[in-house]
Amino acid sequence: MKKLLIIGIGAGDPEYVTMQAVNALNQVDVFFVMDKGPAKGKLVALRKEIIERYVKDRDYRVVDVPSPERKAGEADYVGTVEDLNRDKQQVFERLIAHELHDGECGAFLVWGDPSLYDSTMRIVDAIARSGQHAFDYQVIPGISSVQALAAKHRVALNAIGRPLVITNGRTLCEAFPDGIDSAVVMLDAQNAYRQVSNEALDIYWGAYVGTADEILVAGKLGDVIDEIERVRADARQRHGWIMDTYLLKRRRGGAHE
Amino acid sequence: MKKLLIIGIGAGDPEYVTMQAVNALNQVDVFFVMDKGPAKGKLVALRKEIIERYVKDRDYRVVDVPSPERKAGEADYVGTVEDLNRDKQQVFERLIAHELHDGECGAFLVWGDPSLYDSTMRIVDAIARSGQHAFDYQVIPGISSVQALAAKHRVALNAIGRPLVITNGRTLCEAFPDGIDSAVVMLDAQNAYRQVSNEALDIYWGAYVGTADEILVAGKLGDVIDEIERVRADARQRHGWIMDTYLLKRRRGGAHE
Repeated sequence: MKKLLIIGIGAGDPEYVTMQAVNALNQVDVFFVMDKGPAKGKLVALRKEIIERYVKDRDYRVVDVPSPERKAGEADYVGTVEDLNRDKQQVFERLIAHELHDGECGAFLVWGDPSLYDSTMRIVDAIARSGQHAFDYQVIPGISSVQALAAKHRVALNAIGRPLVITNGRTLCEAFPDGIDSAVVMLDAQNAYRQVSNEALDIYWGAYVGTADEILVAGKLGDVIDEIERVRADARQRHGWIMDTYLLKRRRGGAHE
Repeated sequence: MKKLLIIGIGAGDPEYVTMQAVNALNQVDVFFVMDKGPAKGKLVALRKEIIERYVKDRDYRVVDVPSPERKAGEADYVGTVEDLNRDKQQVFERLIAHELHDGECGAFLVWGDPSLYDSTMRIVDAIARSGQHAFDYQVIPGISSVQALAAKHRVALNAIGRPLVITNGRTLCEAFPDGIDSAVVMLDAQNAYRQVSNEALDIYWGAYVGTADEILVAGKLGDVIDEIERVRADARQRHGWIMDTYLLKRRRGGAHE
């Protein structure tokens, strides 16, 4: 039997790794390291740093995998992600068949938490359901960029007794969700907060949170919107990529709100 | 100067503790342990287990604090939580003034993640803003019960490119949120999933997730609703309390959905 681990390594700071993840890392024979795009170098380096820091007295292999890329600019976002996931599934199947031997344990290290805006679980689940490969797999949660952002800003995600939406820039552009007073936006390529700037919102924005390059800006959306847009554009240009997240909260009275 | 740490210790499994939390625990002079209600014994024991397991070669004090309780059954839920938080604020102020000496580091250990359905940050922030006590504070994120649930069920929280709502039983009772296909429900005292049982939903339910008492049930909501209600009532009776969470996802086609 083969074993696969999908390990959440947290978002940014190598200290976000849990004890469960450290113990899991120390069972692994083969690490599959996949990354793509302009952030590839940084993200691959972070994974390798985590492996080197936490794996003790154990031999392991690292397999660098060229990751398929999503077709950019297509109108059907979900369709292009599904196509991408099918391509990735073929890559994963090849890894399981040829790079992982019987009795061995392989691992994918997932940035942040594997349950949030990540397809590794979906793809591995589809392979397991196909019945073409005999393996067992387990998922290890990690600190997401959402939680890292809230901790750094020292702000609660939800208002008391109220819901929280975690969404993306594309969806926010349609509207600030009805009946919702707290929204976290991930994957915003287009400054979607501009679309809701007429609302009485506070914003807690962060880029590269948990890393040495971390930038945080918070305030009334109307007051800091230009600063965020400028800082964002500067950072993207300087680093060649950006990874940012923000929380929008409707402003209300009450010291404990 | 005094220092306070609000440390997320994860939801259930002592291995959910992060390396950042372990390092933080090892800076602490005074742990403030507050819990209440029927789960008090278990939750206090878990905190003490974490302190004993991870703090090495360091003297520390543990201050057990009788926690104020929320008035149950009031119609104004937010109001009663705000009242409770004001009571807690007085308790926290007393702890900071009398139990924490200058130059020392105190800590609150928060179940799960401090940014989600927890008021510790709000209360400490209110004390800091009051200017009555000079202290610095820092927040350390932890694995929430939401992430533990998803990892155990090996299911992604959101559908591809789609939002996720994290909400509570009271709010879900009003309606399954419009335009939303994934909802996590925390703090459901009244089997709120009954209210949405006419919808085509899958449910991923878990109680005491990450502990030795963990129970997981998943399936089409209509198929497993009676089982969950029965298991839930049994568990609550057996343990004297229940801590459960569930994910509802609209059923759709597509292997990768």
